[in-house]
Amino acid sequence: MDIKTLIKETAAKVEARLNELLPGEDVAPVTLHKAMRYSIFAGGKRIRPLLCLEAAKACGGSADAALNAACALEALHTYTLIHDDLPCMDDDDLRRGRPTNHKVFGEGVAVLAGDALLTEAFAMLARVPANERYDAKDYITEFAFRTGSLNLVGGQVLDLEGEGRQLSVDELRAIHHGKTSALIIASLRLGGMAAGCTAEQLDALTAYGRDLGLAFQIIDDILDVTSSPEVLGKSIGKDAREQKATYPALVGLENARAEARALTAAARADLDVFSARRAENLLAISDYLLKRDY
Amino acid sequence: MDIKTLIKETAAKVEARLNELLPGEDVAPVTLHKAMRYSIFAGGKRIRPLLCLEAAKACGGSADAALNAACALEALHTYTLIHDDLPCMDDDDLRRGRPTNHKVFGEGVAVLAGDALLTEAFAMLARVPANERYDAKDYITEFAFRTGSLNLVGGQVLDLEGEGRQLSVDELRAIHHGKTSALIIASLRLGGMAAGCTAEQLDALTAYGRDLGLAFQIIDDILDVTSSPEVLGKSIGKDAREQKATYPALVGLENARAEARALTAAARADLDVFSARRAENLLAISDYLLKRDY
Repeated sequence: MDIKTLIKETAAKVEARLNELLPGEDVAPVTLHKAMRYSIFAGGKRIRPLLCLEAAKACGGSADAALNAACALEALHTYTLIHDDLPCMDDDDLRRGRPTNHKVFGEGVAVLAGDALLTEAFAMLARVPANERYDAKDYITEFAFRTGSLNLVGGQVLDLEGEGRQLSVDELRAIHHGKTSALIIASLRLGGMAAGCTAEQLDALTAYGRDLGLAFQIIDDILDVTSSPEVLGKSIGKDAREQKATYPALVGLENARAEARALTAAARADLDVFSARRAENLLAISDYLLKRDY
Repeated sequence: MDIKTLIKETAAKVEARLNELLPGEDVAPVTLHKAMRYSIFAGGKRIRPLLCLEAAKACGGSADAALNAACALEALHTYTLIHDDLPCMDDDDLRRGRPTNHKVFGEGVAVLAGDALLTEAFAMLARVPANERYDAKDYITEFAFRTGSLNLVGGQVLDLEGEGRQLSVDELRAIHHGKTSALIIASLRLGGMAAGCTAEQLDALTAYGRDLGLAFQIIDDILDVTSSPEVLGKSIGKDAREQKATYPALVGLENARAEARALTAAARADLDVFSARRAENLLAISDYLLKRDY
């Protein structure tokens, strides 16, 4: 199966399950459930659920065992987008070409829709079946750690605090880790855990997620500086205009490119513990995300 | 032990455990951990943790088994206060005599401190030991249900939507349930579950929480209308000024008083499944909360 078909079919499966797990738009309070669904069903490639399901398969498990975890990751990701778009955070009016949640439902409901999706994510995760190595306690502890104050939410705070001031490379790396890599690592690890993976497999998935996440973010920073809006499909130079620190600005364009290439190679090597057949789809995903013209 | 000593000693125990569970103020990102701690250590009677621990004891378990659940309830409660005080929600500048979280740390950090406390609450709950009847899966499912879109967060949305318009008694009851009773019910049920309670005990705790929560809220509404600021310790008539619906306004003062008395009696009767000795502290708590001069 080619990567685009894999992405499309996985997204359809995850969306169907999310539709079953979330209260319908006719369930009271109707406004809240509409707001939650407005953002979670706004499209997107569902890359985190895909990484989760493919990590489960790479570890020899079935994607079905990880499906509720995949949904939890998408619910979590959606809450971060809703809160991130708020006027007191990034203050964005548009997301994927549609008005952001607070533009449609108001700020109060948007805060609460994010809160409810975050809460629901844990309920979804509690539905992931236990296996001989892991159970709900482990899934929840893992998820809360990767998405909490020491990782994802922490990264958002560093990002807020970093606005308009000079950052060190370490600081920028910590922001990229929190805002991008933390949830990618959680996606891969939860997929592996749902499949009852070994400690060696879990370490490999963690390293792969860390390298993939940072490479993706550095490439994003490079393209923001170098690409044309036609190629990128979005306005460029946005980070520079908003005085956000970027990798090329801190280390230079060529160093940034070299680091992205090194991380891309490292991500491939991280998967060496899996057989070629087992690693195939994960490699296809990182190729899809990282093989861009930077 | 008299009720005031019980409250004080329980609060000290819960605060000591919260201090262990939460990252210190010196852990990065420092601002975030300061903001989380600023609100969770702002005092308060820790009534929800108290109900949780006493429910565990009423069911024949030890308070220790429920201590992490008690902390989770306080973390959850604190996140709701931080988000509720935001300008896009109730827009409050003061809470317990101190500036609200967003007044000190800014709105962006306040949103994120709430998000992190909500996330941390689930991590705390995952630490509650399993017993022969319940495990982490059950605790998380219960907690997410009571605090999610169908209960607590749902109540906040109804409250937001109800501002400035005429509500029915059923609508006001749904708001009171979501904003007050849902978390009280969760506190009691999680305490019982951590103690491995029977289905009959769990039903009794649920009914007690429902009656106690609504009675407390109706009495609060009555005192807002009738009391003097000296007695109440806060400004009165706030609800009326803000055009918030109250019980006395909807059903009349005497009917509200009669319903509060009936619910108070019902709450006591709900505990009949427990022996007098086992029910003693829970009865003392509802007396403390409900025996007021209304």
